[in-house]
Amino acid sequence: MEEIVNKKKERRQSSKTGMPPGRLVYIGEQRTDPVRITIIDYDDKEYTERQVTDPKETFLYKNTKTSTWINIDGIHKTDIIEQLGKAYDIHPLFLEDIVNTSQRPKMEEGQENIFLVFKMLEFDEAANGVKVEQVSLVLGKNYVISFQENVGDIFDTVRARLRNPDSRIRKFGSDYLMYALMDRVIDNYFLIMERIGEKVEDLEDKAEEIQSSEFVREISRLKKEVMVLRRTIWPLREVINNLLRGEMKVIKEGTLIFYRDLYDHTVQVIDTIETYRDNLASALDVNFSLVNLKLNDVIKVLTIISTIFIPLTFIVGVYGMNFKHMPELDWHYGYFVVMFMMAAVAGGMIYWFKKKKWF
Amino acid sequence: MEEIVNKKKERRQSSKTGMPPGRLVYIGEQRTDPVRITIIDYDDKEYTERQVTDPKETFLYKNTKTSTWINIDGIHKTDIIEQLGKAYDIHPLFLEDIVNTSQRPKMEEGQENIFLVFKMLEFDEAANGVKVEQVSLVLGKNYVISFQENVGDIFDTVRARLRNPDSRIRKFGSDYLMYALMDRVIDNYFLIMERIGEKVEDLEDKAEEIQSSEFVREISRLKKEVMVLRRTIWPLREVINNLLRGEMKVIKEGTLIFYRDLYDHTVQVIDTIETYRDNLASALDVNFSLVNLKLNDVIKVLTIISTIFIPLTFIVGVYGMNFKHMPELDWHYGYFVVMFMMAAVAGGMIYWFKKKKWF
Amino acid sequence: MEEIVNKKKERRQSSKTGMPPGRLVYIGEQRTDPVRITIIDYDDKEYTERQVTDPKETFLYKNTKTSTWINIDGIHKTDIIEQLGKAYDIHPLFLEDIVNTSQRPKMEEGQENIFLVFKMLEFDEAANGVKVEQVSLVLGKNYVISFQENVGDIFDTVRARLRNPDSRIRKFGSDYLMYALMDRVIDNYFLIMERIGEKVEDLEDKAEEIQSSEFVREISRLKKEVMVLRRTIWPLREVINNLLRGEMKVIKEGTLIFYRDLYDHTVQVIDTIETYRDNLASALDVNFSLVNLKLNDVIKVLTIISTIFIPLTFIVGVYGMNFKHMPELDWHYGYFVVMFMMAAVAGGMIYWFKKKKWF
Amino acid sequence: MEEIVNKKKERRQSSKTGMPPGRLVYIGEQRTDPVRITIIDYDDKEYTERQVTDPKETFLYKNTKTSTWINIDGIHKTDIIEQLGKAYDIHPLFLEDIVNTSQRPKMEEGQENIFLVFKMLEFDEAANGVKVEQVSLVLGKNYVISFQENVGDIFDTVRARLRNPDSRIRKFGSDYLMYALMDRVIDNYFLIMERIGEKVEDLEDKAEEIQSSEFVREISRLKKEVMVLRRTIWPLREVINNLLRGEMKVIKEGTLIFYRDLYDHTVQVIDTIETYRDNLASALDVNFSLVNLKLNDVIKVLTIISTIFIPLTFIVGVYGMNFKHMPELDWHYGYFVVMFMMAAVAGGMIYWFKKKKWF
Amino acid sequence: MEEIVNKKKERRQSSKTGMPPGRLVYIGEQRTDPVRITIIDYDDKEYTERQVTDPKETFLYKNTKTSTWINIDGIHKTDIIEQLGKAYDIHPLFLEDIVNTSQRPKMEEGQENIFLVFKMLEFDEAANGVKVEQVSLVLGKNYVISFQENVGDIFDTVRARLRNPDSRIRKFGSDYLMYALMDRVIDNYFLIMERIGEKVEDLEDKAEEIQSSEFVREISRLKKEVMVLRRTIWPLREVINNLLRGEMKVIKEGTLIFYRDLYDHTVQVIDTIETYRDNLASALDVNFSLVNLKLNDVIKVLTIISTIFIPLTFIVGVYGMNFKHMPELDWHYGYFVVMFMMAAVAGGMIYWFKKKKWF
Repeated sequence: MEEIVNKKKERRQSSKTGMPPGRLVYIGEQRTDPVRITIIDYDDKEYTERQVTDPKETFLYKNTKTSTWINIDGIHKTDIIEQLGKAYDIHPLFLEDIVNTSQRPKMEEGQENIFLVFKMLEFDEAANGVKVEQVSLVLGKNYVISFQENVGDIFDTVRARLRNPDSRIRKFGSDYLMYALMDRVIDNYFLIMERIGEKVEDLEDKAEEIQSSEFVREISRLKKEVMVLRRTIWPLREVINNLLRGEMKVIKEGTLIFYRDLYDHTVQVIDTIETYRDNLASALDVNFSLVNLKLNDVIKVLTIISTIFIPLTFIVGVYGMNFKHMPELDWHYGYFVVMFMMAAVAGGMIYWFKKKKWF
Repeated sequence: MEEIVNKKKERRQSSKTGMPPGRLVYIGEQRTDPVRITIIDYDDKEYTERQVTDPKETFLYKNTKTSTWINIDGIHKTDIIEQLGKAYDIHPLFLEDIVNTSQRPKMEEGQENIFLVFKMLEFDEAANGVKVEQVSLVLGKNYVISFQENVGDIFDTVRARLRNPDSRIRKFGSDYLMYALMDRVIDNYFLIMERIGEKVEDLEDKAEEIQSSEFVREISRLKKEVMVLRRTIWPLREVINNLLRGEMKVIKEGTLIFYRDLYDHTVQVIDTIETYRDNLASALDVNFSLVNLKLNDVIKVLTIISTIFIPLTFIVGVYGMNFKHMPELDWHYGYFVVMFMMAAVAGGMIYWFKKKKWF
Repeated sequence: MEEIVNKKKERRQSSKTGMPPGRLVYIGEQRTDPVRITIIDYDDKEYTERQVTDPKETFLYKNTKTSTWINIDGIHKTDIIEQLGKAYDIHPLFLEDIVNTSQRPKMEEGQENIFLVFKMLEFDEAANGVKVEQVSLVLGKNYVISFQENVGDIFDTVRARLRNPDSRIRKFGSDYLMYALMDRVIDNYFLIMERIGEKVEDLEDKAEEIQSSEFVREISRLKKEVMVLRRTIWPLREVINNLLRGEMKVIKEGTLIFYRDLYDHTVQVIDTIETYRDNLASALDVNFSLVNLKLNDVIKVLTIISTIFIPLTFIVGVYGMNFKHMPELDWHYGYFVVMFMMAAVAGGMIYWFKKKKWF
Repeated sequence: MEEIVNKKKERRQSSKTGMPPGRLVYIGEQRTDPVRITIIDYDDKEYTERQVTDPKETFLYKNTKTSTWINIDGIHKTDIIEQLGKAYDIHPLFLEDIVNTSQRPKMEEGQENIFLVFKMLEFDEAANGVKVEQVSLVLGKNYVISFQENVGDIFDTVRARLRNPDSRIRKFGSDYLMYALMDRVIDNYFLIMERIGEKVEDLEDKAEEIQSSEFVREISRLKKEVMVLRRTIWPLREVINNLLRGEMKVIKEGTLIFYRDLYDHTVQVIDTIETYRDNLASALDVNFSLVNLKLNDVIKVLTIISTIFIPLTFIVGVYGMNFKHMPELDWHYGYFVVMFMMAAVAGGMIYWFKKKKWF
Repeated sequence: MEEIVNKKKERRQSSKTGMPPGRLVYIGEQRTDPVRITIIDYDDKEYTERQVTDPKETFLYKNTKTSTWINIDGIHKTDIIEQLGKAYDIHPLFLEDIVNTSQRPKMEEGQENIFLVFKMLEFDEAANGVKVEQVSLVLGKNYVISFQENVGDIFDTVRARLRNPDSRIRKFGSDYLMYALMDRVIDNYFLIMERIGEKVEDLEDKAEEIQSSEFVREISRLKKEVMVLRRTIWPLREVINNLLRGEMKVIKEGTLIFYRDLYDHTVQVIDTIETYRDNLASALDVNFSLVNLKLNDVIKVLTIISTIFIPLTFIVGVYGMNFKHMPELDWHYGYFVVMFMMAAVAGGMIYWFKKKKWF
């Protein structure tokens, strides 16, 4: 799923080659559905929530003292992005990153605002895989603008908390709002980890039995998925670390501790990913060892059986020869002597093998 | 054991998704047993020890000049944690970390106090595995608050030393008390290392013999356990290092050398863990080599036996054919000639194999 | 392709051993075609474009206030390089690096200019491989000199943008021009990644089936190609990082953000390369596992068939012996009894194998 | 040897769990032999050497201007250590480290002195392994106190040089004396490296031949020994580096160059260890490859022999059947025709195998 | 070759154990040939070249304003080294490093001079391996002293350039001379890389075919050689980096850019070494895979042949039994029926194998 999307993106990106930098090109699937713009303007007393389609309506809230959250669901209409960019003084390169959905998580400081881009993960039950969506945030003095690829319900709980006049989020400013949004996205990572964790455990249990080649393929698939997550989340750690270290004017001293908490969560997710990677590798190793040991057992026992019968078959062959003159054939107890002799040979070999601990 | 607990925790944690940060949610098993609060107030002359259930009783000791140790056994009653938090000015995020028992070891500086969370390890004889419990410490100007998940006896020796009016611990302040508590926990790590070390040695001894697939499973299990310990203890090293480097007001210059000692101990534990990991990997390698060499031996000798008899069996087959006209069959010494010939062929092959050092 | 070229270069380079440093020696193939010099002089109002063969004609534009881009297609005439070097005050060692096409990407600061050398990648359809060409840039106060090994069309889009009087590139100075040139080269890396990515995916698909030794060779070839790319692009990351960190007089504050964007692109390319490397390694592992599992299956079933028939063949051999006195041979139902007995032995063995889950 | 000792130490250490820090507990074997204290007091003119048993006798030399070296052979009498500690103002934690012989090499700065602990290595001919002993040094303004576990001759050459009034060591102060002592210990590392090197070379030579499982065990044992050395010496590098970087009052500027030399030696030893580790790993790989290639050869040739004879044995079986009506049996040259046919089959198969390059 | 030398050196070094530091001990082979001292004194106008045997003759040039290059071919006469050391104020530890030919590349700053030691590599055609020689350089205000183990022609081109009054080297001072000498040595590394590169390519070509165990041995030998080079050259990178970063009085600002060039060359050599290491590892992997795949093919086809004939041989055995009463034997077409039946069995098995894609 993830890879199919990525591939498409690369294709588009390559068709972008040669364009001047700063030109907005949406590289996802072609879409015509309208872009939903939600404006939430609040301070500890007032609260307004509006849904509009024209970005110009957001400009009303620009120079107010209240905090404003502008949420854009859909980035396929680049003119909307451009209008917002001009109004809120977002650098053209940031705008380009917003619509280029193959960005690595990164943070950039502008004159008056900071720009963040990172990935939202959702478990897609239908495809039984992880769906990756890009989220971009612009944090200004008293506004946050968030960009999502699709309409989603991930920020609903943040909205609910905003509506509650007693909640902490209403008392803090826009920097705390950005934290709240990021916290929601990172909280979702834990849900994904849980799903992956279940799959890893399943495969670990299976590793204890002999498995067919399907097992190897499944491990390989899951390992790849884990690697994609690692590459998605790893740079986010650096991004938050930069937020913590940098001297951003737009983030207040008192909010930093919350970002530190985000940092810890990200490290914890990465830790979990590393554990899963180790566990998958070890499951493959254990399975490989077991398959090998089992094959060794099979081959050993079967080879021993063959080896016992081969000399015996030779002996009976000797007495099946048609020579005129073969004294033993005429002996009265010849047959029984030979039978006994063969039993002795077989017994001797079994004893020797046992002594050598070959089975 | 550890993993089962962890899984449960993750489940709960995921159900926490979407809640505002700073909301206390205990993610362990549901419990109703009372929380035990032990207050020890001391300086080099006085010593008081009380056991209470109401956190408010601890506030009496808040503004005294004596050092106070408040030990909380049980973190499942979040209202108690909240009351303490308000009284001792502990940041809401720290409170959240205290009850969220899936934290990585970490240290945070507050306004007037520092906050530490790390793991206590105990060997659970019943489950034949390591039991992990979370310990949180808050160090203020002249108090230490410690939080444990369960009632335990690990800090009994510290209490005993506190009761002794001549002991060093009575002369130093709360920063030394925190060191003493951490020292106890880290001392316990050595006990765990010893138990793990015995298991590793057992498996190393077993590696010298050919083993069944059970050996592979055991190595894999122990390796996982060692990895869990590594992830549990590794961040603690960083935590103590931060304590040493930071300029904490609450830790006095003279106590730093004790923390440096703690740091050395942690490094030593990590060193031991790395050694165990190497030894386990090497035990697996040695065993794998031995199993392979043994199988090679078996296959080689057996294949040689087969190879010697196969041409002989062909020869006796030739003289078992029923052709009317087969001159050799009528010769008087034909049988003996053929027998001798076969002995020569067998001898020649054995000589050739020996010369080629095939066995 | 790449390696053949590299080898030749090394040969030449070795023949250079012992020469005084600063002596210009072109180490590529011997060539006689003329060197094309293109001069573009521009500011936001004026635009001149000329194609000359004599480097002296470029000196006209040296002390003007307008920005000048001098593009040199062909570095095999060292006297041209030397004349330019003297006129534009380029350090002799930089000149040496320009003609020595086996340079690693690097950046050097001169008195009045900075010098960059890095690699341009193109997919060569004929050789089905990546073609590497060296590009050198000298950025002075209001000029950029670019050196390419061959005449190419990669910078055509930059030229087109320069011709457009309204484009951003006309408004910014020579530092932005250098960025535009580097951006073109790095954009091309994405095209290469796409081609390599397709090959990697092909091989990953093939890994799911049993493959011949050709598969191993192809993986090994592609892995090597990826490693060459990695070594080509990795130092470029460091180069751009140095540009960002350094306090270059010739790069203006406002242009830095564009270079930061270049840096992000380079990191993204390196990320993709790492992914490809992982995927190739994992494709090899999966294929190896599958080949092994398949062979195990074959050997197991075949060995079982042999093992069942070997004792049976022994039994029929027994009754093929020619002893005078063999009671069973004379029984009327002897033949049928033996046939039944053999069926029982075969059935018993199959039952035993099934029970042991050997097939 | 080393490991047995280590294990014992850990056992004891665990029994120390719960004791207050700073309590001296000797964790080696229980011993009753007396502790030998050697006092050497010197400057460039005077030289006194005394052997005493009462630590108090050393206090005489404490406030003199001459340099004093107090060497303690035996650390099992903790009261002696404690008296010295009090007299020379050694921190209780340092004293604890002196008697705890399972310390990692480390350096600590006290008020007036610096404290070093590291390992002395000796090759134990009897056990054919490396013997590890702990050495602790305390360097004060004009004294060095050295602690060894056992009476040894390693410092004899230093003593000899001290007795020589013209030697450099008499002219420099106590900081140079400490260097001289450390130099002796590190010089010994080279001797150990030489012994290990011989063993590694032996095993490398053996790797070129096919080896039994004993070879794998020996490699594994030596690898472990090398790893123990690595862990013993690696932290020493950091310790000396700290000495070099720190601004110790007790080490004079002019002596630093000698410590830099020590640092280089340590790096060289570590380099050698890394080489040995690589060589052992590579010896194992080469041997593994050779064992495999040889087995492949054996199996291939033998399988080919079997495969040639199996169809032939089938053919002779056909003409051994007792059917009444088998025309070929009655032909006069039937036997010879069949023999020729079989020769043709065998020849054809050999030709086919040769063509396929199977042998 | 290299290793033999190294081993000898270690032996000698160990015999040095216990000597006071600063004592000069030549650890190479015992030699009696005279030491050749070449003095070149020059500035941009004058040039003197003399060959002497008495080091005292060099002192004449000590306090002149001209630059002086003193080249010592042979370090086995330690008294010469000592005299020079005293005259030019070289620290005793540096003198010790000059004669101890097992040094790692390193740089030390003295009061008035800097000291460098590194390795010269030459390809020894006779031994078909790389010969390592130690070169030491002392750079003072207007002199360079170079020490080589043997008389060599490596610096001849530097001499030739010095004789040319118009060359750049005559205009720059002694710091540029040292650069020129180092440049020659590092240029030689490229020649060595070329030779190694050819060998690596040969082995890579061979890897595409099935190889005997000789191939494994050759790879292992070359890998070791490459590792030795890596360890020889890697620290040189650090040495030159220190030269660049340090604030040496004896190196002028304008010469630094040449040293930066040296640094780039060293990095390029290390890059090449890494590539060779990767290529060798990958050649071994490819070969291992191919050997395995080939063996699989052989075993598979041969096993199939055996498996087809084993049941057939059983059938003919049945009709070779001598039972009195075997109805089939008396049938007129019994023989042909059985022959047909066997053909059907064989055909069926081949069809089944084909369907299962076993061959």
